[in-house]
Amino acid sequence: MTHTVLSSATKEVVIGFDRPFVMIGERINPTGRKMLAAEMKSGDFSRVEADALAQVAAGAQMLDVNAGIPLADEPALLARAVQLVQSVTDVPLSIDSSIIAALEAGLAVYQGKALVNSVTGEEENMERVLPLVARYGAAVVAISNDETGISEDPDVRFEVARRIVNRAADYGIPACDVVVDPLVMPIGAMGTAGQQVFKLLRRLVSELGVNTTCGASNVSFGLPTRNIITGTYLAMAISNGLTSAIMSPLHPEVKSAVMAADVLAGNDRDCAAWIRENRDPNAAAGAGAGRAEGGRRRRAQ
Amino acid sequence: MTHTVLSSATKEVVIGFDRPFVMIGERINPTGRKMLAAEMKSGDFSRVEADALAQVAAGAQMLDVNAGIPLADEPALLARAVQLVQSVTDVPLSIDSSIIAALEAGLAVYQGKALVNSVTGEEENMERVLPLVARYGAAVVAISNDETGISEDPDVRFEVARRIVNRAADYGIPACDVVVDPLVMPIGAMGTAGQQVFKLLRRLVSELGVNTTCGASNVSFGLPTRNIITGTYLAMAISNGLTSAIMSPLHPEVKSAVMAADVLAGNDRDCAAWIRENRDPNAAAGAGAGRAEGGRRRRAQ
Repeated sequence: MTHTVLSSATKEVVIGFDRPFVMIGERINPTGRKMLAAEMKSGDFSRVEADALAQVAAGAQMLDVNAGIPLADEPALLARAVQLVQSVTDVPLSIDSSIIAALEAGLAVYQGKALVNSVTGEEENMERVLPLVARYGAAVVAISNDETGISEDPDVRFEVARRIVNRAADYGIPACDVVVDPLVMPIGAMGTAGQQVFKLLRRLVSELGVNTTCGASNVSFGLPTRNIITGTYLAMAISNGLTSAIMSPLHPEVKSAVMAADVLAGNDRDCAAWIRENRDPNAAAGAGAGRAEGGRRRRAQ
Repeated sequence: MTHTVLSSATKEVVIGFDRPFVMIGERINPTGRKMLAAEMKSGDFSRVEADALAQVAAGAQMLDVNAGIPLADEPALLARAVQLVQSVTDVPLSIDSSIIAALEAGLAVYQGKALVNSVTGEEENMERVLPLVARYGAAVVAISNDETGISEDPDVRFEVARRIVNRAADYGIPACDVVVDPLVMPIGAMGTAGQQVFKLLRRLVSELGVNTTCGASNVSFGLPTRNIITGTYLAMAISNGLTSAIMSPLHPEVKSAVMAADVLAGNDRDCAAWIRENRDPNAAAGAGAGRAEGGRRRRAQ
């Protein structure tokens, strides 16, 4: 069984097929969040802290941290965000940037074994990101696109993923430290997006044996009642081998689908987490996950 | 592509991998419903009629009709229920009984091509049910247990299913008219129940190419917030090849998971059904499926 072990200074998280699904909180990301971007740029990280605490209270086992703000000093901002989040939570982090210097600045201050988000199958990108991952003993998210873009053919994407896994090995990074992102397109724009990802996941699991992750909310972009689409997508993806996702545990429909999928995949032993989350005797059928989430948040405050 | 075609006097429904998932309404069943059982036994079928209309209004493409009441004249009750439901709805029916004479009585009055629910892998049962199915030109649900009971090993259950499909062929019933029920156990009692069914579904699809169905609510028996478990189970099962289920479309969490799974499996072209169901501009995220269901019911009244 492939285990990807991530850590903070005091806590380990294991991504694996025989483990509960790992929810990596997506909220600390200024992309599309004007207020957060303006605050971070001006040195106000209070919302970063609040987002970190809320996501962990809601059940995120890891947090993604991104500081991609145009015309800002991204390496400095990302390093500061990483330090701040590590000072208020104990969960391992995914350090998220497309800028190599920012990844390096984040890794330099990080305590523990981080997940670097991400490397692509582009030659230049692999040659710059993978040595960094190896030097810091991190794990890395491998995105299955290359110079030719994102193929609609899952078999082409599989070959890109295999190439990254092989190249990582050249740098001494074992396959268990490469977490492949199969890349899900919005299903509203491309009706085959789900089938593509499910097929790719099955090949990644059976032929490469790697763990996987994805930015889950992308699948429901543009659709109404989108959180049910996202949650259902995650359950179906889990059934095809997905072992983690960058997502929001703050949406009850998404979180409850993931927790139910853990039960059904046999990774919530004796349904203990499900029963704990839903045991409120006043909870109406169907409303339990949301209420219990509120309950956990209260306990954490 | 395997297509199982069912019909009423005026309407056809097709179960298939390239079709929207077929929800077979489960409510017309006196098992565990004391009031319904007492009413049916006394000749009052008003609740049967109401259950039929409500389920069709909520989106059921077919209805299961069961009249299994202890010490009652089940053949007569089932025939009457079938006639009544056919007089108030136009959806094809699943005629549900463990008593051969009741199946025969239901088939004798049925208009169209029915789904007979069910035949097992027991020798005596096959020899009695399959000739009936063949004589009436019906399709049949094949339950993957035999004289030895229900195996926990999906490969044993697969062999039972294969045996029924082969035996059906001996009677001139093509494989496309055998809809296999992989039998899902309550996940709260057996943590491997989901994995068993998902594995069995994959084999049924890839090796026998048959359509499948199951009594979905059984999976969540005994658990809190059970409709989310049932809905998530169905989405995962759909991702592994399940093409229909005997279920309640009246539970918004279950119905919305099925509709979302259709979107993600690529069987809701242009997400048309999803958008129609969720387009209420006042619907809050996550509440759409339930509200839209109310809306459809209003239109049908």
